[in-house]
Amino acid sequence: MTSWRFWGGLGLALLAAGRAGAVEAGKVREQVRAYRVAHEKEIVGELAGLLSLKNVANDLGDIRKNADHLTQMLERRGFSTRILSASDDTPPAVYGELLTPGAKRTVVFYAHFDGQPAGQKGWISDPWKPVLRSGPLGPGVKDIDLATVQGSMDPEWRIYARSASDDKGPIVALLAGLDALRAAGIKPSINIKLFLEGEEEDGSPHLTQILEKHAEILKADAWVLCDGPVHQTRKMQIYYGARGVAGLELTVYGPLRPLHSGHYGNWAPNPAVTLSHLLASLRDEEGKILIPGFYDEVRPLNDAEKKALAGMPDVETGLKRELGLGRTEGNGVRLLDSVMAPSLNVRGLRSADVGEGAANAIPTDAQASIDFRLVPDQTPQKVRERVEEHLRSRGWHLVSETPDTATRLAHPRLARLEWSLDYPAARTPLDLPASRAVAAAVDAVVGEPVLKAPMLGGSVPMYMFTDTLKVPVIGVPMVNHDNNQHGINENLRLQNLWDGIEVYAALFAGLEL
Amino acid sequence: MTSWRFWGGLGLALLAAGRAGAVEAGKVREQVRAYRVAHEKEIVGELAGLLSLKNVANDLGDIRKNADHLTQMLERRGFSTRILSASDDTPPAVYGELLTPGAKRTVVFYAHFDGQPAGQKGWISDPWKPVLRSGPLGPGVKDIDLATVQGSMDPEWRIYARSASDDKGPIVALLAGLDALRAAGIKPSINIKLFLEGEEEDGSPHLTQILEKHAEILKADAWVLCDGPVHQTRKMQIYYGARGVAGLELTVYGPLRPLHSGHYGNWAPNPAVTLSHLLASLRDEEGKILIPGFYDEVRPLNDAEKKALAGMPDVETGLKRELGLGRTEGNGVRLLDSVMAPSLNVRGLRSADVGEGAANAIPTDAQASIDFRLVPDQTPQKVRERVEEHLRSRGWHLVSETPDTATRLAHPRLARLEWSLDYPAARTPLDLPASRAVAAAVDAVVGEPVLKAPMLGGSVPMYMFTDTLKVPVIGVPMVNHDNNQHGINENLRLQNLWDGIEVYAALFAGLEL
Repeated sequence: MTSWRFWGGLGLALLAAGRAGAVEAGKVREQVRAYRVAHEKEIVGELAGLLSLKNVANDLGDIRKNADHLTQMLERRGFSTRILSASDDTPPAVYGELLTPGAKRTVVFYAHFDGQPAGQKGWISDPWKPVLRSGPLGPGVKDIDLATVQGSMDPEWRIYARSASDDKGPIVALLAGLDALRAAGIKPSINIKLFLEGEEEDGSPHLTQILEKHAEILKADAWVLCDGPVHQTRKMQIYYGARGVAGLELTVYGPLRPLHSGHYGNWAPNPAVTLSHLLASLRDEEGKILIPGFYDEVRPLNDAEKKALAGMPDVETGLKRELGLGRTEGNGVRLLDSVMAPSLNVRGLRSADVGEGAANAIPTDAQASIDFRLVPDQTPQKVRERVEEHLRSRGWHLVSETPDTATRLAHPRLARLEWSLDYPAARTPLDLPASRAVAAAVDAVVGEPVLKAPMLGGSVPMYMFTDTLKVPVIGVPMVNHDNNQHGINENLRLQNLWDGIEVYAALFAGLEL
Repeated sequence: MTSWRFWGGLGLALLAAGRAGAVEAGKVREQVRAYRVAHEKEIVGELAGLLSLKNVANDLGDIRKNADHLTQMLERRGFSTRILSASDDTPPAVYGELLTPGAKRTVVFYAHFDGQPAGQKGWISDPWKPVLRSGPLGPGVKDIDLATVQGSMDPEWRIYARSASDDKGPIVALLAGLDALRAAGIKPSINIKLFLEGEEEDGSPHLTQILEKHAEILKADAWVLCDGPVHQTRKMQIYYGARGVAGLELTVYGPLRPLHSGHYGNWAPNPAVTLSHLLASLRDEEGKILIPGFYDEVRPLNDAEKKALAGMPDVETGLKRELGLGRTEGNGVRLLDSVMAPSLNVRGLRSADVGEGAANAIPTDAQASIDFRLVPDQTPQKVRERVEEHLRSRGWHLVSETPDTATRLAHPRLARLEWSLDYPAARTPLDLPASRAVAAAVDAVVGEPVLKAPMLGGSVPMYMFTDTLKVPVIGVPMVNHDNNQHGINENLRLQNLWDGIEVYAALFAGLEL
């Protein structure tokens, strides 16, 4: 795992902004805002142009067109650019570098420009023909013709297109923030590097290779991830980590053919019952994982992380109502606290059929699909070992392929385990100098202490940066939480775009000793 | 439940055949066999004629054509016949009565003439165009043209058609047995009544009504059921009961919409986990039902039943190999013993999806389909009460419809239960005079003690006779176990038809004091 000691030993010069920094941040914000107000149409127009390019990661031709377009956008701003890729036939990442004379520190800003497929039904307009609308979809919402817009835009307007929020919006915010600083004559305090990935939505299959291959030019004192949404309360938040993930398909077996439940029930083992008992042995109803040693590798939260968590708002009452929940797991623990622990989620169950399709028969097998969410310092491989040790200690014989009849006959308890050992968690300590500097800069531009999530419950492969580059990674997202990312009618609320411009500009300008 | 005391008090005169009876039975068998050998082509031809009539229960026109045809077959033999039905627009049963001057006892022989639908793929000839073939389907099996058959038929030949075994074959065996007795000048010892049902494969929805409406003419000292197969060893068996059945669809709930398992895992309750724990609370892995009081209504086996069971052959070793079972439930108990107890079978599980279709999400609900097999003196209603008491005692709120959001919010543990309270078990005591007389008559004609199953593991509605008519009901099946009943290419092995003729003739002739 990442060696934070090594990293912390650099004596990073990024500053936790004091009072003077806050004043400075206020000034920067005013100037950036003034620039934005004067250039809204231009900024939205540039975003619309980028959103017009199809960008599903598995279409290499489309991804290359996006990369060319982004390269031009960066070069217009004076970035020196390069295409970084693992090989000639894999999706490229776009790299841009803008050195600041005299700057001692370097920060890489990460976003991805590929998007999820958009084949789902329900898009009310072409996913790659961006449309500006007067608000979230619903009664009264209207299309707005960008060409005819005069003066200031309503910040509740939204731009609808695939990747509007995830992540083309943040890319445009980064560049507009830089334009604004330049227009105001404010020099960045850091060397700025942009790393724009082209296959994040495909699971970043070549990211580690790219990072390793180009480690030298990607050298930096911190990475800022611009991916992800702000808090559901619309408040700005910073995140310092994300849970890891591993998947497991688990199959247990009954008779070779379905058996009449009258003639054989109570004698031929019922795999659905077996599976129920097996699952009950893995996890209780409060979310506690019962596999011996499962929590041994869990790195406890430190004081800074605990304090940050305590500062996050309660969302439980409203969420329970929204989701129709009569209870929650964890004996009343808050949502945000609960996702700091590892979890075992049963994604699905399948055995024979239920309802109208059910036959009075003993099924031949039963399957559960499971995902594990991991926290530092668990690894998928160790989780696999723990699960398999647990099952073996309970008499299970484990196989990875569909067993033949001889294997079924030989083992009273037989399970097929198909693992997907995805990736571990990552969590940058909140009290590293870089962490504190980023937080202070964001606090200063927002004008109040923003929410700080030590770790997201969901999984993004932050470990690729932390493990490969041994660098602090901090998420500073800007897009609205209700942006429908991955779904139909993805959108970006203009106020979030405006906020992003100010926050990223503040990071460019304010991370200075 | 059935009052056996009332019934036993009749002092039934049916005789447990002694030595003299056995000798007599041998003679009857020889004469019936000689008749059959001389009339094989005629008997198979009559069966083929009956099998040519479509007989799916829900086609009232077809069922009426079968009823007419059967009425003629009975009247040709001197039966006085009647159509018995619950109403004008429900499938008729065919009733025939043949009184024997001087006979004091009356036995009803039951079979059904409707058949399962035959729409499945894989029939190698029209289900309602009977074909004689040289054996079970497989390499080398040949069609045989009945018209060209000379002399004796190979007893391993089989006649293929829907209902060949289930139950048109037994109907023809009953009538051929009677013809054989007549040809030999042997007078029946009993009044013979035939009750031929026309909608058994549809769940006998009007059987109780018909039995109640016509209780007077159906009065008898015993019923013999001709439905069902002989033992897998091809040995003749008698059965005295059948388990009852009840079905339950059980649904538990998670969030109103699928939730990202990273962002909400460990907090929003996972219904698949909840269901697993719930099922594990109902039944252990050895088949033992953990619901308090579940076994309270179980009538213990009496000595005669225990003795009969002990006489049934072991089939476990071969079955385990055939079914690929590495273990069996019940800590090594024999199959036949295990089905004497009630069982809880999970027919199927369903929650979201598994494998390729699985999403990293907390499912909205999870469903299990369950069947209970009941034994005397359990009732479906009592089973329902026990299950619901158990769940309520564990904090479950139970509903019968899909709950609305308010209901979901109000109840931490919420389950939807959809019951199918089918019917109770029935078990005629083996030591009743009627039971002993039937067994003795069959033993005598077969020439050795036949297998006696106190109860079938599967469910047939024997309770309709026992509960409605308060009469002993004993199953004397004749068809081969590998007849593919309900499936494709249903067939009847000729040796089983020949055996049936001898056994039913023996019952007509040998049940005498």
